[in-house]
Amino acid sequence: MGVQLLPYSNLIEINKHSAVPIFKQVAEGIVFLIRNGKLKPGYQLPASRDMASMLKINRTTVVSAYEELRLEGWLNVIERKGNFIAQELPVIHPKPLEPLAAKGSKQQEDSNFYKKVAARQVSKRTLSPHQLMINDGYPDARIAPLESIYDRYKFLSKRVHLHSRLLNDSAAGSMSLRTELALFLAKTRALNIEPRHVMVTHGAQLAIFIAASLILRPGSTVIVGDLNYVLADRLFEQMGAKLIKVKVDENGIDVDEIENICKKSPPGLLYIIPHHHHPTTVTLSKERRIKLLDIIRQYRLPVIEDDYDYDFHYENSPILPLASADHKGYVIYIGSISKTLAPTIRLGYLIAGDDLIWQASVFKQMVEIRGDVLFEESIAHLFNTGEMQRHLRKSVKLYKERRDMFCDMLNSCVGNLLHFNMPNGGMAVWATFTPEYSIPDLARRLAEKGIFMNDGSLYRYKDDVNGIRLGFASLNTEEMQKFIGALKECR
Amino acid sequence: MGVQLLPYSNLIEINKHSAVPIFKQVAEGIVFLIRNGKLKPGYQLPASRDMASMLKINRTTVVSAYEELRLEGWLNVIERKGNFIAQELPVIHPKPLEPLAAKGSKQQEDSNFYKKVAARQVSKRTLSPHQLMINDGYPDARIAPLESIYDRYKFLSKRVHLHSRLLNDSAAGSMSLRTELALFLAKTRALNIEPRHVMVTHGAQLAIFIAASLILRPGSTVIVGDLNYVLADRLFEQMGAKLIKVKVDENGIDVDEIENICKKSPPGLLYIIPHHHHPTTVTLSKERRIKLLDIIRQYRLPVIEDDYDYDFHYENSPILPLASADHKGYVIYIGSISKTLAPTIRLGYLIAGDDLIWQASVFKQMVEIRGDVLFEESIAHLFNTGEMQRHLRKSVKLYKERRDMFCDMLNSCVGNLLHFNMPNGGMAVWATFTPEYSIPDLARRLAEKGIFMNDGSLYRYKDDVNGIRLGFASLNTEEMQKFIGALKECR
Repeated sequence: MGVQLLPYSNLIEINKHSAVPIFKQVAEGIVFLIRNGKLKPGYQLPASRDMASMLKINRTTVVSAYEELRLEGWLNVIERKGNFIAQELPVIHPKPLEPLAAKGSKQQEDSNFYKKVAARQVSKRTLSPHQLMINDGYPDARIAPLESIYDRYKFLSKRVHLHSRLLNDSAAGSMSLRTELALFLAKTRALNIEPRHVMVTHGAQLAIFIAASLILRPGSTVIVGDLNYVLADRLFEQMGAKLIKVKVDENGIDVDEIENICKKSPPGLLYIIPHHHHPTTVTLSKERRIKLLDIIRQYRLPVIEDDYDYDFHYENSPILPLASADHKGYVIYIGSISKTLAPTIRLGYLIAGDDLIWQASVFKQMVEIRGDVLFEESIAHLFNTGEMQRHLRKSVKLYKERRDMFCDMLNSCVGNLLHFNMPNGGMAVWATFTPEYSIPDLARRLAEKGIFMNDGSLYRYKDDVNGIRLGFASLNTEEMQKFIGALKECR
Repeated sequence: MGVQLLPYSNLIEINKHSAVPIFKQVAEGIVFLIRNGKLKPGYQLPASRDMASMLKINRTTVVSAYEELRLEGWLNVIERKGNFIAQELPVIHPKPLEPLAAKGSKQQEDSNFYKKVAARQVSKRTLSPHQLMINDGYPDARIAPLESIYDRYKFLSKRVHLHSRLLNDSAAGSMSLRTELALFLAKTRALNIEPRHVMVTHGAQLAIFIAASLILRPGSTVIVGDLNYVLADRLFEQMGAKLIKVKVDENGIDVDEIENICKKSPPGLLYIIPHHHHPTTVTLSKERRIKLLDIIRQYRLPVIEDDYDYDFHYENSPILPLASADHKGYVIYIGSISKTLAPTIRLGYLIAGDDLIWQASVFKQMVEIRGDVLFEESIAHLFNTGEMQRHLRKSVKLYKERRDMFCDMLNSCVGNLLHFNMPNGGMAVWATFTPEYSIPDLARRLAEKGIFMNDGSLYRYKDDVNGIRLGFASLNTEEMQKFIGALKECR
C-alpha cells in the first residue's frame, strides 16, 4: 500500500470544526478530485480502512462517504473487488489539462517560453502490423543474431557484482566494446586506433550531435552535400549554424567547390558521407578523396565523416575512410551498429583523438550520463565470439543478392516510372520518379494496397526533387514482389 | 571473405612496368602497412588466393611475397591457420596515431578546433569486481525484475513483424509505455495527463537536457539550489546560461529569495528538485510549495521539476509535485525509471503540454532518432502486468528498513565523524564530515579496505562543503556493516 495511491491526505481537506459532517467533506473532496480529472472513470479508491488511516479519521466515516458517493452515482462498488469511479459520471465538468496550452485559448500566449523547433506539418500516419513497410535503408532484423545479444544481456544482468565496475567505466562507453570496436575498425578500415580513441553512443545520430556540439558555434558555417542527410542539416541549423550546400554528382561531393569556399573563408565544419552518400548512394571517387585530404590538411578543416554503412559494399574493395589517412586530427569518424544489426538497436560510435574523446564523453555525460552498459557489453561479446563478423559476411552476401534482384525488378516492371543507378553498396536505391508520380501521391496509393512508404514528410529534400530512398535490404523476394507489383499498378 | 579484410587493392600499389619484381612490390607494400601501424602484430593476412584476387595478380606471386616476408621475420606462418604479422617485428617505426594530437607536439595547435568542455582533472580510479561500491543513491538491482524485462525483450525481438509499427511510433517513445506512464503518474502523483503529454527518454538526464535546450538561450539566467545536482549546473553553464544560486535549507529552496529575483528581473528558468533534493535530501515544505506556485503563475516562470525519486517516500504521504497543481503550463515534469529498477537501465520521462512534447520529440529525433522501442515496450509490459507496481511496494518497504538500519549504524558507530539528518525518502543520506576527514582522503583510505567511494572528483559541490551522498538502498546488512566498520577504522 502507499506507493501507488494518491496522497489523499494532501488532496482531501478535513475540517473537524466545520458544520458539514466529516463523511460529507470526504465525499465532496472525492467529487472534487473526479471533477478536476485527478480521479478518472475506472480508478479504484483505497479500501475504507486504508483511506481512514490516511485521512486520520474513523473507518465508518469513510464507509459512509463511499456509500453516499455510490448513491449519487459517482462510485461503482464491485463485490470483493473494491470501489471504482463510475464509468458514466453523473456530471462531468473536467478542467482543461493543466500542462496543455490549448490552442486558441487565453493560455496560448503562455507557450512562448520554449523554442519552436519545427512547424507542426508532419502528417502522422498509422502503420498496422500487417502492412509492408518500405524503409529508407534498414538491415533485415530477421537475420540478425538478436537472441545471442539478449541471452548475453540476461546472463550479465544476473551477475550483479559486475555492474558497479561497468557503471564506473568512462561515459565514453563500456571498455569491452571500445576495445572490440578498435580492433574491428583497425582490421576493416585501417584506422590506426586504440580503445581510448573510441566513444560508444546511443545511436550514430547522437555521435553526430555530440561532435557538432563540440565544433559549432552560433554563426558557424557548415559545408554539406546538396542533397544531404536531412536530419544532419536540421541539426546543424538548430545549433545556429549556416549551411553551405555543395553539389553532389556521381563521383560524390564537388571537392573543387569545397576548395573555393575554403579559399574565400574557411568554414567551421565539413559534414561528409563518402560511402553510399545519403540519400543518393554515390561514393566519393579516389581522386576526390586524395584532393579532399589535401584541403583538410591545408585549411585545417574540421570534418565529420559519417560512414554509416561502410561494411556493406558489394563491388571491388571499398575506398578507405578519410579518417584512415593523414588528416592531422581534423577528421572525426562516425559509424553505426544499428545498421549492422537492426534499427531497434541503438548503438553508434565516434572515433577521434583521445583528448577530443575525453571532451566528448564529458559532454555525453551531461546529455545522458551513460549508455546501457550491460547492453554494450552484450554487443562486445558478439564481436568477441566472432558472431558479429559471421553475421556481417552473411548479410553482405544476402543484401548483394537482394540489391541485384530489386534493381532487376525495378528496371523490368516500373522502369518507365522512375530513374535510378544501381548502388555499389548500402541498403537502399535512390529513385527519382517522373513528375506525374509525386511521392506523397504514390505513398497514398500504396497505403491503400497495404504498403507503408514514407510520404516525403519525413525527408523533404528540396521542392524540385521527387526522389525517395527505397530500402531493399530488409525485403525478402515475396515482399519485393508485393511492393513492385503495387507500384506497377500505380501507373 | 571481404567484409573483415582491409581493402588491400587500395593500400598496396602494383606497378607492372616497374623494374622491381611484383612479389617484391607486394612484400614492400605489406611492410609499409606494418610500419605505419595499419597492420599490427598478430593480424592475419588474407590467404594467398584471396590476396591475389584482390590485387589482380598471380597467386604464386603472393606466395613468393609471403615467403619473402617470412624470411625477413615480418610474418609467422602457422600450419593450417595462415599467415600472421609477427609479434616481434624486425624493425618498428610506428607513426604516431593519426587522430591523436599528442601533447607538446606541433600537432597540439590542431586541437583548438573543438570546445574544451572541461579541464582534465578527474582522477580515474579502477574499480575491481570484488570491491564494495558506495554509490550516491542507486536502487538495488538484485531485487529488480530484470529477468522479466529481458524475457519480454527477447519475446518481442522475435516478433519482427511488429517492429515496423514500433519504429513508426513518434520519437516521443513507444505508445504503450507513454500510455502506461500516463496512467501510473495520474494514479501516484495526481498528474492530469494523457499519453500525448508524455515523452520517454534514454535516462532522466536526457529529459533535462532536452527541456533546457528548448528553454535556454545563451545568456539566460537559471535559478538553481545552493547546493544543487552538479550535472544539471554543468549542463546549464555549458549551454551558455548564468546560474543564480538560491540557498536550500531544511524546508527546501528559499522561495522568498526566488520571489525577490523575479521582482528584479524574471529569470529564464527555475530548476528545482522538490522531493529529496539532490544532494541534501530535504523536501520542499507545503507552505513554500504553495507560495512557489503563486510565483510561477504570477511571473510566468518556466520550471524544470526534477522529481527523480518521488516513489520512494517513507513517512506520511509525499507532497504532490508542482506539476499536479495549476501552473498554467509552465512546469515541465521529469522523472526516472532507472531509479525504480537499476542504474544500468536508462529510461526517464518528460511531462508537458502536447505542443511542447511535440517540439521536444522533434528535438529528440535530432539527438538520437529514437529510443530502443523493444526495450520501451518491455518496460510497458512490466507496468501493464502490475509487476512494476509490486516491485515498487517491495522496494519501498526494503529501502525504509535499510534507511533505518543505516542511520542507526552511522549514529552509533561513526556519529562523531559526520553530521546527517535522516532523510524522509530517497536512497541516500547526505553526510557532511568534520574537517579532519576530507572526502578524497577518506576515499583513499576506504579503497585500501576494498571499498570504492566517490572521492569528490565527480561531485565537487563547493570548496567549503565536505559532504557526500551515501547510498543505502543498494546495500544489504552485511555490506552496510563492512562499510561502517571500515569508516570506523578511519577514525
